[in-house]
Amino acid sequence: MDFSSFLTSLATSCVIFFVLVFLFTWLSRKPSNSVIYYPNRILKGMEPWNGRSTRNPFAWIGEALRSTEQDVITMAGVDAAVYFVFLGSAIGILTLSGIVLLPVLLPVAGTDVGLKVPIDTNSNGTFSNLDKLAMGNVQLKSPRLWAFFLSTYWVTFVTMYVLWRAYKHCSDLRATALASPEAKPEQFAILVRDIPSVPEGQTRKEQVDSYFKNLHPETFYRSMVVTNNKEANKIWEELEGYRKKLAHAEAVFSASKTTGKPEGTKPTNRTGCLGLIGKKVDTIDFCNEKIKELVPKLEAEQKVTIKEKQQPSAIVFFNSKPAAASAAQTLHSQMIDTWTITQAPEPCQLIWTNLAIKFWSRQIREKVVYAIVFLAIVFYMIPITFVSAFTTLKNLRKVLSFLKVIVDIDAVRTVLEAYLPQIALIVFLALLPKFLMFLSKTEGIPSQSHVERASSGKYFYFIVFNVFLGVTLSGTLFTSLKTILKHPDEIIEMLGKSLPKNATFFLTFVALKFFVGYGLELSRLIPLIIFHLKRKYLCKTEAEVKEAWAPGDLGFATRIPNDMLIITITLCYSVIAPLIIPFGVIYFGLGWLILRNQALKVYVPKYESNGQMWPHIHVRIISSLVLYQIVMIGYFIIKEFYYAPFLFPLLILSAFFTHICNKRFYLAFQRTPLEVVSQSSKEIPNLEYVFKAYVPPCFSTEKFDDDY
Amino acid sequence: MDFSSFLTSLATSCVIFFVLVFLFTWLSRKPSNSVIYYPNRILKGMEPWNGRSTRNPFAWIGEALRSTEQDVITMAGVDAAVYFVFLGSAIGILTLSGIVLLPVLLPVAGTDVGLKVPIDTNSNGTFSNLDKLAMGNVQLKSPRLWAFFLSTYWVTFVTMYVLWRAYKHCSDLRATALASPEAKPEQFAILVRDIPSVPEGQTRKEQVDSYFKNLHPETFYRSMVVTNNKEANKIWEELEGYRKKLAHAEAVFSASKTTGKPEGTKPTNRTGCLGLIGKKVDTIDFCNEKIKELVPKLEAEQKVTIKEKQQPSAIVFFNSKPAAASAAQTLHSQMIDTWTITQAPEPCQLIWTNLAIKFWSRQIREKVVYAIVFLAIVFYMIPITFVSAFTTLKNLRKVLSFLKVIVDIDAVRTVLEAYLPQIALIVFLALLPKFLMFLSKTEGIPSQSHVERASSGKYFYFIVFNVFLGVTLSGTLFTSLKTILKHPDEIIEMLGKSLPKNATFFLTFVALKFFVGYGLELSRLIPLIIFHLKRKYLCKTEAEVKEAWAPGDLGFATRIPNDMLIITITLCYSVIAPLIIPFGVIYFGLGWLILRNQALKVYVPKYESNGQMWPHIHVRIISSLVLYQIVMIGYFIIKEFYYAPFLFPLLILSAFFTHICNKRFYLAFQRTPLEVVSQSSKEIPNLEYVFKAYVPPCFSTEKFDDDY
Repeated sequence: MDFSSFLTSLATSCVIFFVLVFLFTWLSRKPSNSVIYYPNRILKGMEPWNGRSTRNPFAWIGEALRSTEQDVITMAGVDAAVYFVFLGSAIGILTLSGIVLLPVLLPVAGTDVGLKVPIDTNSNGTFSNLDKLAMGNVQLKSPRLWAFFLSTYWVTFVTMYVLWRAYKHCSDLRATALASPEAKPEQFAILVRDIPSVPEGQTRKEQVDSYFKNLHPETFYRSMVVTNNKEANKIWEELEGYRKKLAHAEAVFSASKTTGKPEGTKPTNRTGCLGLIGKKVDTIDFCNEKIKELVPKLEAEQKVTIKEKQQPSAIVFFNSKPAAASAAQTLHSQMIDTWTITQAPEPCQLIWTNLAIKFWSRQIREKVVYAIVFLAIVFYMIPITFVSAFTTLKNLRKVLSFLKVIVDIDAVRTVLEAYLPQIALIVFLALLPKFLMFLSKTEGIPSQSHVERASSGKYFYFIVFNVFLGVTLSGTLFTSLKTILKHPDEIIEMLGKSLPKNATFFLTFVALKFFVGYGLELSRLIPLIIFHLKRKYLCKTEAEVKEAWAPGDLGFATRIPNDMLIITITLCYSVIAPLIIPFGVIYFGLGWLILRNQALKVYVPKYESNGQMWPHIHVRIISSLVLYQIVMIGYFIIKEFYYAPFLFPLLILSAFFTHICNKRFYLAFQRTPLEVVSQSSKEIPNLEYVFKAYVPPCFSTEKFDDDY
Repeated sequence: MDFSSFLTSLATSCVIFFVLVFLFTWLSRKPSNSVIYYPNRILKGMEPWNGRSTRNPFAWIGEALRSTEQDVITMAGVDAAVYFVFLGSAIGILTLSGIVLLPVLLPVAGTDVGLKVPIDTNSNGTFSNLDKLAMGNVQLKSPRLWAFFLSTYWVTFVTMYVLWRAYKHCSDLRATALASPEAKPEQFAILVRDIPSVPEGQTRKEQVDSYFKNLHPETFYRSMVVTNNKEANKIWEELEGYRKKLAHAEAVFSASKTTGKPEGTKPTNRTGCLGLIGKKVDTIDFCNEKIKELVPKLEAEQKVTIKEKQQPSAIVFFNSKPAAASAAQTLHSQMIDTWTITQAPEPCQLIWTNLAIKFWSRQIREKVVYAIVFLAIVFYMIPITFVSAFTTLKNLRKVLSFLKVIVDIDAVRTVLEAYLPQIALIVFLALLPKFLMFLSKTEGIPSQSHVERASSGKYFYFIVFNVFLGVTLSGTLFTSLKTILKHPDEIIEMLGKSLPKNATFFLTFVALKFFVGYGLELSRLIPLIIFHLKRKYLCKTEAEVKEAWAPGDLGFATRIPNDMLIITITLCYSVIAPLIIPFGVIYFGLGWLILRNQALKVYVPKYESNGQMWPHIHVRIISSLVLYQIVMIGYFIIKEFYYAPFLFPLLILSAFFTHICNKRFYLAFQRTPLEVVSQSSKEIPNLEYVFKAYVPPCFSTEKFDDDY
């Protein structure tokens, strides 16, 4: 990529961004769109905007900047607040690095003349102006390398300092959340799995009750045996479907009445496949009939389920938070593959179907999933390499010859040349998360937030190995695996050799991500279009309209790994091509601003894990840091800098830092400190309410509470 | 070493062994020696032997064989029982391996003719008859190698099977011990460390009490703040010294009276350095005076200590076992480097001086100690190599020329040649444990049993790296470290190349260990001689005599690593030179028999960790197994066996097995399952007794209990 196409790419991105921002300011002012731009506020029963109807088009920026962490916690939960701590830390790391690195390294590099050697150029093949400002322009063995050497240390120290403060802050956030006097159901419950088979003459419920009554005579409240609700759930969903259909039909009917037809046209449908074939019936009557039929069926199924479909798993309730916290941390059974005990997840994020999976099955599933992910990471290179090769412009012209006319226009060609490889990558990565989510769920993890964390972790390794290293080593990771295994010390040099060549590619990649990505994020064009289409053609009832604009959550499972990729890229290039630092700062700065707006006004969190994401983020930032250190060692060796081995202490330092952070903070994220839950008010809340929170929706009819 | 010197070595070892056994049968029958041969029974208030005065000289063998595990637990505790499980497992592994390997591999190897190639000989340099029966005698690429290949798998499976059963058995032993209704003080207490600084206007005791009363309002009993007892202890020890001296002097005085002298000679001593200089005084008067002087001094110091020398550490008592077990497993503080909580160790094994060491100090000490141990392991080769080089007979003759006359006798030379290298090694290793014990204690570990485990682990790595690998690679481990780091795959071949050459050396080593080592163990010659000397010349009072024969404990810290070395050696050679298997079986069989006798009759356990040693042993046997697998892969590659890579799954299998065992058993060793402690009787014991068990001896005067 030459310098002009780099500038073109940057300029177009920028233009797209401003168009999207303009669209946002224009569209978000229309009251009919407020459910798309302010759903979180609306669902919380607030005005879409704070009263004033004549609004400054840039008021949202001010509001985002003025909002406190407490506002974020109130509107979007602790998880979102922790996510902003992450964005803030990224900004902090890059800014603190930048204010030293940019004024020092750019002049040092720019005034040298190393680039006569063509192999050191920063972009693949062609020479560009940008390369003059990078480490590649410094001559071999030059004493100027000392500036870069010290910068490497500076970035490490800055990262560690910011991370330590962030960990402390997140730890406090979590403690405050856990200490809140609110009676969250999950704080009174524990999840019990792997219950041994029922002894003769006892029901499952009696077994569980007697076990816990015996071990916690004073604090045990009651238990709920997990049942296999598949059948009941199916009937319940069918029933709900008919109820919705009925409401829809009634709305259509009353609408047709008001439009003037004397009797109104009663809506009809066919009973067969997809409503296309079969007998034509009156929808309202049909639905009423079906509902009448299904209600007793559901009740019968509920009874059967509770009696016969009990699983070896239960939720056990205690009469105080400290009792539950303490029980969740205590080993109960001598056979540690039975009566496995963990903190109960929130009712809304329980994955019911996973609860019955037994201990050894979970162990094996986990190993198998890891093996699949490992294989996928290693062999994913093949399709990626294929796609990259295919999406060069020349190839496209050849294959899709009808594009020739467009492609041959100069401006279009420049734009396409700048974007094609990146777009291919982005599309490719969009397909992955679902697959990883599925895999993580298969492991047998009992809570949604944990599944998202697990899948986010896998996605991170995917991205780093396949996108970052894949692009860097131009698809040679897999082919050179054998060499790497034989001579593990050579991978360092290999990285150092290939990394600088791709600096411009990643510069464009980051810019594309923030301008187009965050532009789309802010403007919410796609949800807006879908909503309006749905409202016009499909939705008749209030509930249906509400469903059409339901905003979703922040989607940490894909958002965080993508941010992590950017921080990995910027860290790795921070010293080699310091120009990337401002791009990184803009990415995280824009992200902070726009997502602050989205968190306050748009997204509704699906669950609350009280910041358990942080240790996960922390470890991965450290992995990026280590990767950066390895890359730097490699590049210094290639630059024939005698003191390169003095970078090795950085790796030891990183290991030590990880260990210390782990020792200092991690346990408080894994378990609930007794001190924290004891702080909250000691009065016993309505425990029936706590219990009912865990009754699955298909059982939420009054009469079954006692049998449970 | 040639074949004849091997046989000589074996024969002499055997003769020494039988002489020692004879000595034991002869000496142990004398009633005056019974305190040496039956101290455990005597201390437990039993007859030295079961009534019959005319005893079969081999009765001890029958008694050892007939004794049940329960007998061992009663006489020597669960730790000893677990040790016998280990010995039994070793016998099991080797026997099961042997019954397949010996009849199959010996004929397969013996009938081949590979040893024309001199490089494959089993002993350094010279050819011997033994080598004909080893894998070295099989030709390269020979299909006979299949037998050895399958044997490698067989040994692995056998080891895993035996280990799994043993782990299960130990787990049950531990559970039974923990569930016993006896009110062991440590089951009611937790150890609290890293207490933050005392808030204004509170004493340390009030701080601790209020913290735990708040978190455990119903189960908290009382607390005991740890104090710095150094000064008080010093005075107390001085006082005890004078009391002993007084008793001694009185005994001497009354003895001199009975021997006829009219007035008796009052014993005198000098007050100066070591009793050699200074004023001559009457000992009885002097001691009485000193005691009178010290008692109020001790009381004053006790008061000062309790008030002013409080440490940031405490022992907290609960009113039931489940409450203490649950509290010990629960995270208490949000700041996890404060209020660190662990199960309380037994009072007798608390290391008081370590309790006050703070969290971060412990972390750093641990790292520093690990670094020292690592350096020591790597650089210990230097003295070992030096000693090995020095202790060849030729060198000795040169240096100590006066030995020439003896050494030149043929028989003596053969014996010396056989033993010298081994003796050098054994002496060398005897010097290590104290040093490792000191290092482990410095880490800040709070209990004696844990220190012994930690030091035993370090000793194991020492032994394996320096003795086993050191001898095998003939001191090249350190020098070839650089090559290994660059080409890690070559270490496998290196091991495979050097190991077979040392088979005979290790055969002799094992034989020496069991014949002479266990012979000495059984005969207890050294304690016997020391006891008789002491009794004759030093001891005057009953207490002094009792001190003179105090038997000590089994000494797991050095015993287990030594056994582990033998099992590492036998496993690694099991397929290469199957003849080593019977030697291994004899080692562990004799060990089982003789130590059974010693456990039942001689040694008195110092502490009871309820078998926490087992996971530790388990992991190290697996390490040996993995070393064995690596060695086998290396040797098969050298034998140019095409299917050698099919041994790699063994390594994966080992990793998987470790993981599974860990998941299934480990947690129950680390924590106390609630189920287990709840089984024991629910009545509340005398908690004052529990509390008093933890009062350090220098405070054990009645009046201070309330202040504590």
